Amino acid sequence: MSDRPTWVEGAAGSGHDVDHLPLAVVAPSGGSPHVGVRVGDLVLDLGRLTGDPVHAAPSLNPFLARGRGTWEATRAAVVAALTDPARRSEVEPLLTPVDEVAALLPVEVADYVDFYCSRQHATNVGRLFRPDDPDPLPAAWRQLPIGYHGRAGTVVVSGTGVRRPRGQRPSYGPTEKLDLEAELGFVVGTPSTHGQPVATDDFRDHVFGVTLLNDWSARDVQAFEYRPLGPFLGKSFATSISAWVTPLAALDAARVPLPGQDPPPPAHLAVAEPAGYDVALEVLVDGEVVSRPPYAATYWSPAQMLAHLTAGGASLRTGDLYASGTVSGDGADEVGSLLELHRGERFLHDGAEVTLRATAPGALGGRIALGEVTGRVLPALGD
Amino acid sequence: MSDRPTWVEGAAGSGHDVDHLPLAVVAPSGGSPHVGVRVGDLVLDLGRLTGDPVHAAPSLNPFLARGRGTWEATRAAVVAALTDPARRSEVEPLLTPVDEVAALLPVEVADYVDFYCSRQHATNVGRLFRPDDPDPLPAAWRQLPIGYHGRAGTVVVSGTGVRRPRGQRPSYGPTEKLDLEAELGFVVGTPSTHGQPVATDDFRDHVFGVTLLNDWSARDVQAFEYRPLGPFLGKSFATSISAWVTPLAALDAARVPLPGQDPPPPAHLAVAEPAGYDVALEVLVDGEVVSRPPYAATYWSPAQMLAHLTAGGASLRTGDLYASGTVSGDGADEVGSLLELHRGERFLHDGAEVTLRATAPGALGGRIALGEVTGRVLPALGD
Repeated sequence: MSDRPTWVEGAAGSGHDVDHLPLAVVAPSGGSPHVGVRVGDLVLDLGRLTGDPVHAAPSLNPFLARGRGTWEATRAAVVAALTDPARRSEVEPLLTPVDEVAALLPVEVADYVDFYCSRQHATNVGRLFRPDDPDPLPAAWRQLPIGYHGRAGTVVVSGTGVRRPRGQRPSYGPTEKLDLEAELGFVVGTPSTHGQPVATDDFRDHVFGVTLLNDWSARDVQAFEYRPLGPFLGKSFATSISAWVTPLAALDAARVPLPGQDPPPPAHLAVAEPAGYDVALEVLVDGEVVSRPPYAATYWSPAQMLAHLTAGGASLRTGDLYASGTVSGDGADEVGSLLELHRGERFLHDGAEVTLRATAPGALGGRIALGEVTGRVLPALGD
Repeated sequence: MSDRPTWVEGAAGSGHDVDHLPLAVVAPSGGSPHVGVRVGDLVLDLGRLTGDPVHAAPSLNPFLARGRGTWEATRAAVVAALTDPARRSEVEPLLTPVDEVAALLPVEVADYVDFYCSRQHATNVGRLFRPDDPDPLPAAWRQLPIGYHGRAGTVVVSGTGVRRPRGQRPSYGPTEKLDLEAELGFVVGTPSTHGQPVATDDFRDHVFGVTLLNDWSARDVQAFEYRPLGPFLGKSFATSISAWVTPLAALDAARVPLPGQDPPPPAHLAVAEPAGYDVALEVLVDGEVVSRPPYAATYWSPAQMLAHLTAGGASLRTGDLYASGTVSGDGADEVGSLLELHRGERFLHDGAEVTLRATAPGALGGRIALGEVTGRVLPALGD
């Protein structure tokens, strides 16, 4: 991190100072998509700064595939350009107001995996879905981060409308229990070798950064279909991610110890502390904050999710996305789904606008503001 | 179908006459990968025949994306070239012996979904995994084809070795219950619109063809992890498909009515008969036939799987692959997994070679031979 402030006006204290620098694929009106870096309320055209054609691509994937060395060098180059007053006249023409560009889906998603890492969420859901079970947590829950594959082809960028899905509830019709799930998504850059597990210590070599993620869920469809192979149509209609990807490097100051794992995880899932991240989420419905889920309360860390995902030899590809599962804290106003917030009695209406936003401690002493993810519920087809 | 026989010697009765014509991506020694069509023991270089650069690609995806009109026109052009004696001298130089080319992964897999469509298999597994349940079939099983997303990034081509995975059984170590699952895989060519279900009647507009598929499974890992989100590491280490994709058009003569659906499916899953396919599979372990699963016995048809997959608005992409689930018939020697064959008591040893092969009635009166899928079990890492 530079010890000089940026010359970009308004960046200090905005959540987008040079300790953040999230990446997106942006398309200026009439221009072609390219990689942009946000600073203050401006977007820096990374391709024009570096002259590297990898940043002129319509997705982050080619850049992500270059690996951690390139990620770090590029970040250092951007910080240098934005903090050296002598470069202001050279760099200023490469900046565009963020509200003058469209931000596209940042990543060509390879495989998408969703986990179930919040003990509070898994407990709350277990009580609602399996009220007769004496232990609301599934038997394996404390032994491994439970996860499953979701649909990569329906991951959409923030701002995309989400059509209310039909499904069997058990009769076929529009879901009456459309829900949101507030999650963090982790974006893999560096691939791994098929057959070779990735150790928890190698997490930061493979994962480039973080998005916010709304795992839209049709609870009635999910409840009918999920035994024994897990969620399918209840989750596959849409998953929204933020357009801006926050580099892991920007979350260094947000690292915190996990809340504690009892029993200790098996050796191949052991992780060096601090392995958690203090990311404070907010869930907004129709502009009103309805919940504040604390990611720091999450039981399983992202390094453990990655190690588990590959522990059987499954390989990683550039563009793989894996998500934390719904983030819920201990408080009634800290849950990451309406299922939990309203005890299964109230869900999303047509036209509802759902927004997730989050902040985390940054290296400059303030808080960085992760890219928000928003989406409006469209009525079911034919309605 | 031409009423003239092919001039290719040895094609008649080989399972690879002009009523079959499966496609693969082949790489001749020292040459670049391109699309090939099999006839007899030869491979026709489709790019050189048609002059269309789409066939010079290292995957079938660009061709598949063109849609059904192109698939049919291309098939007709190949039949014409191989049955017109006047074209023999022109076409013969484009043929290479099949054992002189390497066949690569034919499809860049977008999303991979695995279903659970065999009533006999679901019943057998239900009895083994949930012996206390009075009805071995899950509650929703007759209402919809149960399915889940698998890992697209670990779909491998026939011939690839499969390393015995480690996993939590519940202690972490090499699986002691490595199994095979004999399935058909359906390859999507034509994409669909996000939010718009695909009707069962439109199945043949979207699905190009069929592979054989081995859904390798670690039963001990699967049993420990699968509640409540379904199989994950128990299935994600490898899924093998045949290199050769049989066009649906080649299976027209194999169409048969479904064995019967009771109760009738909901209206959006109703299907015009004949909706089934008479594909006779064989499972070989170390060269010995251990089972003969009849795909014709399968309860849910591929058109219904596709309609269900998209019923909530999930979109299709070119390269999507969805599989039938393990094919099991009524007989003890007709089951598609070792779990069923040996009642959970015997699984695959290191070095075991598993091969799936299949035939189906062809339009010329004989049987076509679907591309086989084979793979050898490699010992776990460190063993």
